[in-house]
Amino acid sequence: MISRNQIKFINSLKQKKFREQHRCFLAEGSKLVKELSEGPFQLRQIFSTSDWVRQQSDWIGSFSVEQVSLSEMERISTLASPSPVLALFEIPDQTITPACWENDLSLVVDDIRDPGNLGTIIRIADWFGIPQVICSPDTVDQYNPKVVQAAMGSHARIALIYQEITELFRDVRKEIPVYGLMLNGKNLYEANLEKHGFILIGNEAHGISEAVSTFVTHKLTIPFYPADRKGHAESLNAAVAAGIVCAEFRIQNARSEKREV
Amino acid sequence: MISRNQIKFINSLKQKKFREQHRCFLAEGSKLVKELSEGPFQLRQIFSTSDWVRQQSDWIGSFSVEQVSLSEMERISTLASPSPVLALFEIPDQTITPACWENDLSLVVDDIRDPGNLGTIIRIADWFGIPQVICSPDTVDQYNPKVVQAAMGSHARIALIYQEITELFRDVRKEIPVYGLMLNGKNLYEANLEKHGFILIGNEAHGISEAVSTFVTHKLTIPFYPADRKGHAESLNAAVAAGIVCAEFRIQNARSEKREV
Repeated sequence: MISRNQIKFINSLKQKKFREQHRCFLAEGSKLVKELSEGPFQLRQIFSTSDWVRQQSDWIGSFSVEQVSLSEMERISTLASPSPVLALFEIPDQTITPACWENDLSLVVDDIRDPGNLGTIIRIADWFGIPQVICSPDTVDQYNPKVVQAAMGSHARIALIYQEITELFRDVRKEIPVYGLMLNGKNLYEANLEKHGFILIGNEAHGISEAVSTFVTHKLTIPFYPADRKGHAESLNAAVAAGIVCAEFRIQNARSEKREV
Repeated sequence: MISRNQIKFINSLKQKKFREQHRCFLAEGSKLVKELSEGPFQLRQIFSTSDWVRQQSDWIGSFSVEQVSLSEMERISTLASPSPVLALFEIPDQTITPACWENDLSLVVDDIRDPGNLGTIIRIADWFGIPQVICSPDTVDQYNPKVVQAAMGSHARIALIYQEITELFRDVRKEIPVYGLMLNGKNLYEANLEKHGFILIGNEAHGISEAVSTFVTHKLTIPFYPADRKGHAESLNAAVAAGIVCAEFRIQNARSEKREV
C-alpha cells in the first residue's frame, strides 16, 4: 500500500526541478534497477509487486521495499506498460575528470534535446569504453526517466557532467584534439583519429553551435553513399552518427594498439 | 475552418487499421511535407495556418489546402508542439524488388517495435543508398506518425515492404549472403563485406528470431572496446547498430570500387 503523498512525490520526480530539489531519480524494470544498484547509485527505495519481491530475494535483502498493487504501479510508472518494479536512486555528485580527455576519449554533446538520443549516446559511450560524457547545460537532463530507460543501465558505468562547453574548451590545453561531427568536414575514414581528445556531437536540428564550433580542431563527416548521389537524407540521427564515429575511433585505436604490440 | 468529422477522420489515422482502411497517412512540418510531396506519394490534402500558406505559395499551387487555426491544429496534430502544417498522403502500393539484393544491399528488420528506431533506420538506408527495407509483419507500421516524423522525409526515396522473412529467405537463391547482426558473430571489421545481399537487424530486446537466424550465412558483431573489458552495455540500440554496420559495408564497398578503377 502506497500513500497519496508517496504517489505525488514519485510523480513529481518526472520533472527536473523536483529531481534536483530531492536529489533523486526514477528507474523502472528489473534488469535496470538491479544494474543501477550495482553502480555508484545509492538505492533509496523500491516499489514493487509482491511476485517480483519473491523472485528477487537473492539481491534485494537489505534494500527498503514497499509492496504495491498493479493498479498502484500504474499510477506511479512513467511507462506505457508498467514493469513490476520502480526504484528511487540518489543523484550522486559528479565531477569532471581531465584525465579522461588527456589519455582517452571524452564525448561532448552540444544541446541534445531528445531523451531517447541522450540515453542511446550514454549506451554507446558504455559500449565503446568512453568513460565520460560532457553535456552543454541545455542538453536534456540525464535523469529524465526516458533518458534513464534508453540508457539501459549504462549510467552505472558512465559519468555525465553538465557544463558550458565553450568554457571547458577555453580551459583545455591547446594540444588536445576536438573532433567535431559536421556536414562539411573531412571524410571520417580518411582522418587520423587519435586515442585521446573530445568527440563533439551537435544538436539534432542545428548541429554544433557557432560559439562551440570555433574550438573544433578536426571537422569530420560521415560520407553518404554513393559519393556522387543526388537526393539523399540531409543527415543522420545524432545518436546514430555518434555511434558510427565512436566505432571508427575505437577500431582505429584497436588497430594501432595491435601494431604497437 | 475544419469540421468535427474531419478532426475525427484525421485522428483516426493515428491508428494503423484506419490508415489501412483509408489508404492514407499523416505527416507534419513544412520540410517533411514538401519532401514527401516530391516523392512517390500523392498528396491528398494540406491543413495549415494562413501564415504558412502565404510563405509556401511557390510550391503548393495545385494542392488542396484547408486553412485551420492554431487551436484546430492542436486538435489534429500528433506532435507535442504542433507545426503550422499537417498533410494527408496516399499510401502507395509497394512491391519487393529482387534486383535490390542481387546487385545491391537490402536491409531486413525482424520485429523492430519502436517507431523512432524504424524511422531512424529508414533515414540510415537513405544516407547509405540502400534502396529497400524489408520488414517482418510484426515490425511497427512504416506509416505510424512517429515513424514518419523520425524518418524525416526518407520515405520519399526508400521502399519499405512488409513480408514474412523466413518465406523471403526460403525463396532467395542460396548464393545471396545474409549478414545477421548478432552478439556471437565475427568481428565486423574482419569480415569480407560484399556489395550485395541482406543486412539483417533484430528486435530491440530479443535480437534476430530463431526461425530467421537459421538463414543467416554471415554472423557479424560490432566489437566493444577495449576487447578485454568486463562490465559494459549488453548491446547497442538497434538503429545505432544498423548505422554502424551500414557505414562499414559502404566504406568497404567504396574502397573496393576505388581499387577497381
